[in-house]
This record gives sequence, structure tokens and C-alpha cells, in this order.
Amino acid sequence: MISFESDYTNGAHPVILQKLIETNDESLATYGFDKYSESAKEKIKAACQCPEAEVHFLTGGTQTNAIVISTMLKDYEGVVAADTGHISSHEAGAIEYTGHKVLTVGQELGKIKADELEKYLDSFYGDENHEHMVFPGMVYISHPTEYGTLYSKRELEELSNICDKYEIPLYMDGARLGYGLMSYHTDVTLADVAKYCDVFYIGGTKVGALCGEAVVFSKNNAPRHFMTMIKQHCALLAKGRLLGVQFDALFTDDLYYKISRHAIDMAEELKKVLQEKGCRFFIDSPTNQQFIIIEDSKLNSLKDELKVSFWEKYDENHTVVRFATSWSTKPEDIEALKELL
Amino acid sequence: MISFESDYTNGAHPVILQKLIETNDESLATYGFDKYSESAKEKIKAACQCPEAEVHFLTGGTQTNAIVISTMLKDYEGVVAADTGHISSHEAGAIEYTGHKVLTVGQELGKIKADELEKYLDSFYGDENHEHMVFPGMVYISHPTEYGTLYSKRELEELSNICDKYEIPLYMDGARLGYGLMSYHTDVTLADVAKYCDVFYIGGTKVGALCGEAVVFSKNNAPRHFMTMIKQHCALLAKGRLLGVQFDALFTDDLYYKISRHAIDMAEELKKVLQEKGCRFFIDSPTNQQFIIIEDSKLNSLKDELKVSFWEKYDENHTVVRFATSWSTKPEDIEALKELL
Amino acid sequence: MISFESDYTNGAHPVILQKLIETNDESLATYGFDKYSESAKEKIKAACQCPEAEVHFLTGGTQTNAIVISTMLKDYEGVVAADTGHISSHEAGAIEYTGHKVLTVGQELGKIKADELEKYLDSFYGDENHEHMVFPGMVYISHPTEYGTLYSKRELEELSNICDKYEIPLYMDGARLGYGLMSYHTDVTLADVAKYCDVFYIGGTKVGALCGEAVVFSKNNAPRHFMTMIKQHCALLAKGRLLGVQFDALFTDDLYYKISRHAIDMAEELKKVLQEKGCRFFIDSPTNQQFIIIEDSKLNSLKDELKVSFWEKYDENHTVVRFATSWSTKPEDIEALKELL
Amino acid sequence: MISFESDYTNGAHPVILQKLIETNDESLATYGFDKYSESAKEKIKAACQCPEAEVHFLTGGTQTNAIVISTMLKDYEGVVAADTGHISSHEAGAIEYTGHKVLTVGQELGKIKADELEKYLDSFYGDENHEHMVFPGMVYISHPTEYGTLYSKRELEELSNICDKYEIPLYMDGARLGYGLMSYHTDVTLADVAKYCDVFYIGGTKVGALCGEAVVFSKNNAPRHFMTMIKQHCALLAKGRLLGVQFDALFTDDLYYKISRHAIDMAEELKKVLQEKGCRFFIDSPTNQQFIIIEDSKLNSLKDELKVSFWEKYDENHTVVRFATSWSTKPEDIEALKELL
Repeated sequence: MISFESDYTNGAHPVILQKLIETNDESLATYGFDKYSESAKEKIKAACQCPEAEVHFLTGGTQTNAIVISTMLKDYEGVVAADTGHISSHEAGAIEYTGHKVLTVGQELGKIKADELEKYLDSFYGDENHEHMVFPGMVYISHPTEYGTLYSKRELEELSNICDKYEIPLYMDGARLGYGLMSYHTDVTLADVAKYCDVFYIGGTKVGALCGEAVVFSKNNAPRHFMTMIKQHCALLAKGRLLGVQFDALFTDDLYYKISRHAIDMAEELKKVLQEKGCRFFIDSPTNQQFIIIEDSKLNSLKDELKVSFWEKYDENHTVVRFATSWSTKPEDIEALKELL
Repeated sequence: MISFESDYTNGAHPVILQKLIETNDESLATYGFDKYSESAKEKIKAACQCPEAEVHFLTGGTQTNAIVISTMLKDYEGVVAADTGHISSHEAGAIEYTGHKVLTVGQELGKIKADELEKYLDSFYGDENHEHMVFPGMVYISHPTEYGTLYSKRELEELSNICDKYEIPLYMDGARLGYGLMSYHTDVTLADVAKYCDVFYIGGTKVGALCGEAVVFSKNNAPRHFMTMIKQHCALLAKGRLLGVQFDALFTDDLYYKISRHAIDMAEELKKVLQEKGCRFFIDSPTNQQFIIIEDSKLNSLKDELKVSFWEKYDENHTVVRFATSWSTKPEDIEALKELL
Repeated sequence: MISFESDYTNGAHPVILQKLIETNDESLATYGFDKYSESAKEKIKAACQCPEAEVHFLTGGTQTNAIVISTMLKDYEGVVAADTGHISSHEAGAIEYTGHKVLTVGQELGKIKADELEKYLDSFYGDENHEHMVFPGMVYISHPTEYGTLYSKRELEELSNICDKYEIPLYMDGARLGYGLMSYHTDVTLADVAKYCDVFYIGGTKVGALCGEAVVFSKNNAPRHFMTMIKQHCALLAKGRLLGVQFDALFTDDLYYKISRHAIDMAEELKKVLQEKGCRFFIDSPTNQQFIIIEDSKLNSLKDELKVSFWEKYDENHTVVRFATSWSTKPEDIEALKELL
Repeated sequence: MISFESDYTNGAHPVILQKLIETNDESLATYGFDKYSESAKEKIKAACQCPEAEVHFLTGGTQTNAIVISTMLKDYEGVVAADTGHISSHEAGAIEYTGHKVLTVGQELGKIKADELEKYLDSFYGDENHEHMVFPGMVYISHPTEYGTLYSKRELEELSNICDKYEIPLYMDGARLGYGLMSYHTDVTLADVAKYCDVFYIGGTKVGALCGEAVVFSKNNAPRHFMTMIKQHCALLAKGRLLGVQFDALFTDDLYYKISRHAIDMAEELKKVLQEKGCRFFIDSPTNQQFIIIEDSKLNSLKDELKVSFWEKYDENHTVVRFATSWSTKPEDIEALKELL
């Protein structure tokens, strides 16, 4: 069985695991006040070229989205997102559970276009009845998007300018940020992300960690008593070291980039194989997720030898499936796929 | 100044006011246990031809929507509504504030089409990842819709059948229900509403009362301890009589229908005048709200003599405005409008 | 049947009702933008001697408490209240429903003592683990309290100083404020309330109105977009005039004080009768509510001729009952009670 | 430096760590559908002698409390807890954030007495106004309690009977359950817990795991779509294996009991030393937490050599500190303490 099912089917990258082993017997401060958490924060701030940043560690993506969004929004505000945004549809209503509406705008391949956003905000404030409506209080983007696509530096700058104009923060969901940064087709660096976004998170779970996401408030804008609110949202780990140690490993010797680059290299190889085999691409993705339209009968015939994940129905006889690569994808897997197809 | 601004610019219909005056000095039970509330409930159940119904009085429309929806939904459920539904956009996020998502589907003139709804529900349960998504737990329709349009009896039956199939309640927002029932162009009766909907409300505020909406659970399906939840949602009036007396008046001698019919008669007259004057209708509405596309310059020139309400921008030089009639609209108002245009 | 059941069993004071009648046919701006609401706000600001105040009208007491508390608190904060406070026990969890904890402190006859409050706040910040706890973000007092008792001006000043020291607002629930201001045993004026409290409400429902409470933010401290949040909390009346007209009447020609004073005069007469008849007072209340310990057998024997309200069980054979006076209490009622006992 | 600071300052028990290492490279199903999670669930059901149980894994204690409580309560209900209960004071309002009130009753050494509970429930339903109050919908106990004390089997049975009478579930917070089960002074087994409690959790974080708690619904009473609600509460781990593998290790070869027993043995040794040294015990705790009243000057003089945790101020010159043992406590630590004191 070859698996391209997702980038979180395997455990931790060996270097991370090793670090957990090495530090296991140390008696450390709890609730995230341990030295590894402190060290990891410093390394992340350096990597972001943003010494004034404030970094917090959380366990998973939905958790991070819900906490960042609900603690930064005012009661009368909602968050603007693409209708395909993860928070819009695949987080079981976690944002709404905090009392805030997700305000959706159209998208192209998962990306919010600057002019669409501006039109939305203009028309909100132009509506005489807007005091009866949910105020747009933040813009949420994912990078890579749910479709594996990427914003260019220029596009980020445009979105950032619009957010500045309306005085609302731009928030980037970076569940797979590493794959975006290491794509062959990007001009966006981590420092750019810190520059254009008011808050973002660097995803760990899907980039080699067992769990963990690092939230970065890059503009001296972390909500007051954020730790208390993390606890209130049920997300404060007693053994905060679990997150600190992993991120300390990820941001030592460029591990985060190396893991990401490996997955990107594998994805590019995979892409070649899929193209050679004449597969039909659902979209052109520059990151570690590749989306293929496949006949249902073919999919069925492969199911004992190939694991990919269901994305959506394409039409009556076809399905879109996702191939994902990760730290654990091996060149042999690509070879085996080549044989299989 | 002639005003067609809305159906809630004036006070109470004189008969309702009279009843408030007559009962004012009586010492009555509090929190809705007074005899007028009891009597009003009986009359409403009779009018609905639904003796097993349970009726509760609330103060306003958004309040009613939020309480009905949040108390009937389970935690993991959201409410399906047209993207133009009042709860989707014009209630300041009151539904999301209760922790529930509004799941939007497309519409035609404010109405949810049965096949669209079925497709939505089918595709939700057909999605392998639906356990990560908000479950559709109720269908919300408004009748008349936000565009003044109406469902036919057949359409209600179809929606009801789909809801039954998926075992979720059909909820009708009847903020202006009277105008729907008294339209020249409907085959839907109040008994039909009670038959096809699991819960609905009979709007008072916009049909002659000072305030007040009557929620009807028509299928022995009122949530347990509903009164406690009304209080929890800050909606339990100490002097519940205020609502009971008004609804007792509205459902005595067909007052609710008479008020509604008067407004419909006025709206039909209004329509004739607007047609005669060559006005451009935004949509064809069979109820007390009429939507007209008007040149901005023209609108501006009329603004000292005519009050209508802003609906939305049509294009750069045109605006959609709404004319509304009510119990207080007089034939003279229509005449004066005729002169004016 | 003589009734001292509560101060909200009757309708509106005749002067208020008259004002509703007189203004009924006027076409007015909706959602609280009508001229009567504007006028009422000005009169209230004048009565408070607080020109910089911001006034909003809401429908009922629990609603007002929940909206004021939840919009002024930050997410990580709760509200400090006496364990007998209305929000602590008799509002069906409306405060918790907004996500905030009610932090209780001990009380004497319903009043929070300054030293108790200070001890509570000191010990919170002295606790090394307080970042894992709910921050005290506001102090709630009721005046008169749930036991009809009153704070002195000195006591209010002390509470206010402590709140200032900890930079949290002092909020007064004035559901029956009029009766406190018109008590024979108070040195507190409405201007004092505005001076010492950061926010408070002037109760209408229990002081002669059909419904309605006036929230006063006295320190330029109204939350931004408060109207939107009123709507979000399901409390924005379409016919806002209903509240505006009533408060305009209440604050014209001192009606609010006159209504309150009448009830106080009646309560003092009632007290005399109860004393003469040898009734046992549960507490010594200086306002319109009087609490009497009565034998259950006696209570039962009176139940066809006297309506009072159950307060709490005193012991196995005795019950505490409450007598309340209001605008509608007549000297004859007191006389009749004298006969009866 | 000797540390008795807490039972969560060290990493995972070596056997658990080993299991994480061994399984790290396996490609496993995500979101808790992996084979280790399945296996762990079966082992836990067997250990509870409760084949009909349903088991779910969550990350931490506050998270577990908030999810269990909010998903089992109805909207109009709150949870009854000791005023010293963890949910009452040390979870940053996480329960209230879900919209539910924590209803507090008095306690003795952290334990709710059956007669106190019964009195509370009787008096709630005996109160004529209880429809205006929060309904008690669940009883929360911790075992061991926050003071390290334990319920006897008889006491659990009594609480269980009262809950049955009132048809509300009994919920046990077992953050340190192992230490309770392995105490020298208990007659309660895991099977008893499953018998008397409707739902409980077996704490992992404080009993040797890196993170993780196992919720057990023992009466066929797991809320529907619990997984969706776990996601909604931001608690669904993508790599659910992290929890499954750890609990599979904990429930293989009695590891959970062995870890717990070791800590208890160490605690009993510690107790002897503290007694020998004439220390003053704050309470008599039969589990792994020992509470000592110590002079502030003494505490200060030890602070470079001994780490314990602040519990509360005892009086002006004394502090209560907590000593905790765990899997990582070594006999040498006790010896060193003996030397030190």
C-alpha cells in the first residue's frame, strides 16, 4: 500500500522525536514557561525578522483559528473569509461557537482577491443599514490555501493595505505555511508574512510535529491576558514543554524549512509522474497538495494499493482526490506510484 | 410629507390600543401567566386549527429567531437559510452569538427552492468529511420573504417533505405573516402554515402591535423549560400582559386579518399608481412591500415630500427603494403620491 | 382580594398611558431614533446632572444586566456580585449565557461591604495562580438591593474608590431605583448615582412603565457600536418609541419621583399597620418592599383574601413573604389589610 | 535542587515514550481512528469492567471538563460543584464560556457531602421561583479532590443515588484518578467509578503521559456526534495517535496502576519524613499531594534547594505549600529532602 493520504498520517520528524527523548527526564516549568518554549519563541522571532513579535503555542489549527479570531474581534465583529476557507466550512462551526460570524466573500482557487475584498468592505460601510449587520473586524486568509495555492508578495501587500485602510487585522492561517515558503513558485518569505500580516500561525502538526502551532502577533498587538484566554478556551497544556520542545527543534538548523522543502521536492516529482501518466489536474498547485480528477471506477480499482484522500465529487462519474506529500514521503513511494498507474 | 417608509413607523392599531387602555388598571399575573395571554393563546391555536400547538409570546423578530433557533438546534447543528434571509445578514449576528452557524443556500427572489435544499442536504451527507462540518439542523424560511414574495402551498409542502425526510424542523419567520395570508395572490392559509411548519411565528410588531411576536410550536415540539430559556435569553417580560393583551385583541374578531387586508388593499392601489406612473419594479411583490428602481436624482428631488426606505444600490445612478403599507396607510396617502409623481 | 404581590402586576401609570395614546398616530423614526427617545435622553441626562452621559433604552432588567455586563467586560473577566444579587441567582443564567462568570462575594442584607470587596480583589491579585482564574472586571450592586435595603452615599463612595483603584467599573442595577431615591431613609440622589457609578440603569418596568429600563453610561464610557450589540442581544425594538415615549413621560414634571414617592408613602403606612398587628419583620427595609415572617397556617388562611409573594422558607413552619407597593397601591388597600389582619 | 513542585513537571513515563518511538514511523488513520486509539479504548473498557462504555480521548483536564459538561447539559442547566472544585475557580471561566453556570455547594476537604447535595436539590425544586433560575443538570466531583482527599465507595453510592433520583448525571473529574485508585486508604476501584458515575475521565497528563485524558461514558449515554462537538470545541487532534498510543501504553500491563502506585509509595515515604521533621499538615491527604503549613521565612530560606508549589496563604506569616510525587519521584529525592529539612 502506497499512501499519499495526508501530511499528518505519520508521527514526528525524527529530529523532533529525538529532542523529545533527550529532554524527557528534565523537570521543567509548566504551562509554557519552560526554557524550550522560551528558546523556541526567540528563534521564531528571529526567523520572522520581527524582534517585537509575541509568540504563543497552541495545539491544533482549528483551536488556533478560534482563539485568535475570537480574542481579536470585538463582540459586534465577524471575520471575513473566502467561502472555501477552512473556518468557513470544515471546522464544525468552531468560530460561530465563540459567538462570531464568518462573513464570506468569493474567491479564486481559494484566494481572496484584493478588489473583491475592497468591494465588500466599501459596500458594507456604504449600506445605510450596516449598524444592523455584523461588522467586518478581521480578514482571514490561508496560505497555502485549502487548494494548495499561494498568494504572491504583491497580493499580500494589497490585502494588507486594504486592511490598514479599514483598520482591521489581516490574519494568515499557516497550517501548511512551510510548504508555501519552500514552494518553487513563491516570492514570499517568512519575514514578508510577518510584515504584511498582523497575526499568523506557523503550522507544526502538518509540517512534521506531533501537534502544535505557533501563533505570531507581529505588531505589538497580542490581546491582553492571552494566556488566561487560552486556558478559558481549553487550550493551555499543563506540560507546555510538549509544544516548546517541538518548535525549538523545528526552528533549530532550519529544520522547519528542510522538512517543508523535502515535501515540496517530493510533490514536484509526484506532479511529473502524474503528468506523465496523463492524469487530469483539478487545479495547478505549487505546494505539497496535488488535486487530481479521477474516474470513480479507476479510483475503486486502485483502492487496495493506493491511499489518497477524497476531496469532492467532480461529476457523476468522477471524483477529485488529493495527493499529499510530507517529511515521510520517500522517493520510493513516487516510484511505486509510477509503477502502479 | 407622505410616508411609505415602513410598516412600523406608527403606534398600535386603535383597537389594540383600546384594549391596553381598558385592561390597564387590572392587577394581573406576571411573566405571561395573565388571563389575556392565556386567552390569546387559545385564540391563536383555534385560528391555526391546531389545538395541540403550544404558543409563546416574545417581543421582537430577531429575538424570536434567535430563541427559537438556538433552543431547537443541537450544539453541533446550524440553521439553513437563504443567503438573503433576515437571519443571514440583518440581525447583527444574533444567531451566531448563540453559537450556531447560519448555513446559506441560494434563493430566487428570497425563496429557497426545494431542489436546491435537497441538493444541499444530500451533498452534506454525501461528503465523507461531514463529521467535521456543521450539521444542518433546521430550515429557516421567511414568508413573506425579505423581498415580499410568497411560497405557494405546494412549495411549502415540498420543503416540509424534505425536512421530514431529513428529520429536521421547518421554521417560518412570519414577521409579516398577515400580509402573506391576505395577499390577493396566495393559496396558503394559517392552518396550512401550522400543518407544514414545525414552528413559526405570527408577527405582531409589523402588523399593528406596539411590539410582540407569537411563536407557535405546532407539533408538540416545544423545547422543555422554554420559559426558563426565554428568561436566559433576556426576553421574559415582567409585565407579560403587554404581549398577551395585544395578541388577544389581534385574534379577536379577525383583527389580525383585517389589519393585514387593509395594508394589502392599499399596496395594490399603490402598485397601480406606480405602474401608471411608469415606475420600474425591482421585483413583482404580492404583499405590502413594493420595490422600485429609481434614479438617484429623482429620489433626491422627492426627499422633502416622500419618505420611502433605502433598499440597496441598483447601479451607479439608481437605487432600489421600498414602499411599505400598513394599518395606518390611508387612501389619501396613495392619492397624494399620485399627485406627487 | 387585596394584592401586595408585586410592583408590576398593574399596567402603566395613567400619565404614561396617556402619552402613549397621544402619540400613537404619529409617524416616527424607528429603532429608537424618534424624537421622544431623544427628548427622554436629554431629560434623563439633566436629571442625572450629567450632560456627558450616554443613555440607551432597553426592555427589561435581566436584558439590561446581561447586555451591560457582557459588552463592558473583556473576555477574560467576570462580574463581582453579592451572592444574593439578582444576576447571581434569579436570572436563569443569563450572564453565564454570554460567557461570563458571576464572581460572588458575601453580603449583609444584600449589600456588598467595601472591606469585603477590597479583600476579594486584593486576594485575587495576591494569588500566584490568578492568571488561571477569572479576572474581576466589574462590580455589580443593586440599589435598592433584592432585600429592599439601600447603600448610603458614603458606602457608594467607598465602593467607587475601590473600583477606581482596580480600574474596573461600578455598575448599579436600578430596577427599583426610584424607590431608593424617594426613601425616607436615604442621602443618595440621582446625581450621586451618576457620580459614583460608571454605569447604571433607571428601572421603568417596576416604577410605573409597561416595560423599559434606561441605561446610563455616565463617564463617556459607552461601548462602541452599542446599538449593534443591542440588536445582537435581541433587544432592539423596531418601534423604539414604545420606550422613548414612556421615559419621556417619566422624566417630565418629576413623574418618576412622584410615582416612587407614592409607593414609599404607601410602604411606610403598610409598615405601621404590620407593626401594629405585631408582624415579625424579616429585615428592616426602607423601600417599597417589606418582608414578613409568617406562620404557614396563617398564610394559608389568608390566601383567598390577600396576595403577597413567596420569598423563601424561613423554617419548617414559617415562610418569608414580600409585600410590595407601587403607583397603583391605594390607601384603601392598606385600610383593608388592617381589617384583615 | 529537589523538586516536588507538581506531577507534571517531567515528560512521559519511559514506557509511554518508548511506545511513541516505536510507532512513530507508522502511517496511521487520523483524527483518532487509528488502531492504537481503538486498542486503547478496548483496554479501558475492560479495565472499567464496562463493555458498553464509550471512550474518547482529549488533551487536557479543563478541556475535558468543558466539553463533557457543555455537551451533556441542556441549555437551561448548570453544573453543581464544590466551591473548591477545579471548574469553580481555577479554569479561567472555561465552563461559563460555554454558556453554563457552575452552581456551588459547600464542601468538606473538597468533598461534596450527600446530605448537602440533597438539600440543595430539594430546595431548588421547592423554590416557587425556580423556573427563573438555572436548573441543576449534573453533579461534578473530583476524585482525588483538589485537596487530595477521596470519596469512599459508600459516599459515591450515596451521591449516585441522589443523582439518579433527580435524573441528572454524576460526573467525576479524574485528573489524578490513578492516585486515588492506588491510595493505601481507599475501597474504590475503577469498576466502582464506572458503576457509580455516568461519565468520568481517567487523567493521563498528571499520571505519566505527555498529555491526554480518557473520557468514559459508562451508561450508553455519550452525546450524539460527540466527535463533531470535540472539533467544535477545538479539541480534535489531527494526529489522534498521540493520545491513542499513550493510553494504549498506559493500559497495557497495568502501567497506569504501576505509575500511580509508585507515586503513592513515594508520597507515603514523604509523609513519614515530613511527620518526623515535625511539619504541620494542612490536611490529611491519602494521595500523591501533601499539603504543609510552613513559615514564610523558612520557605524563603529553602527556595534555592527545594521546589514545592504555592497553595494558598495560611495567615500573615505562614503559607500552605503542596508537595506532589509522580512517576519521576525517586527515593533519593525523599532522602535528600530528609537531609534538607
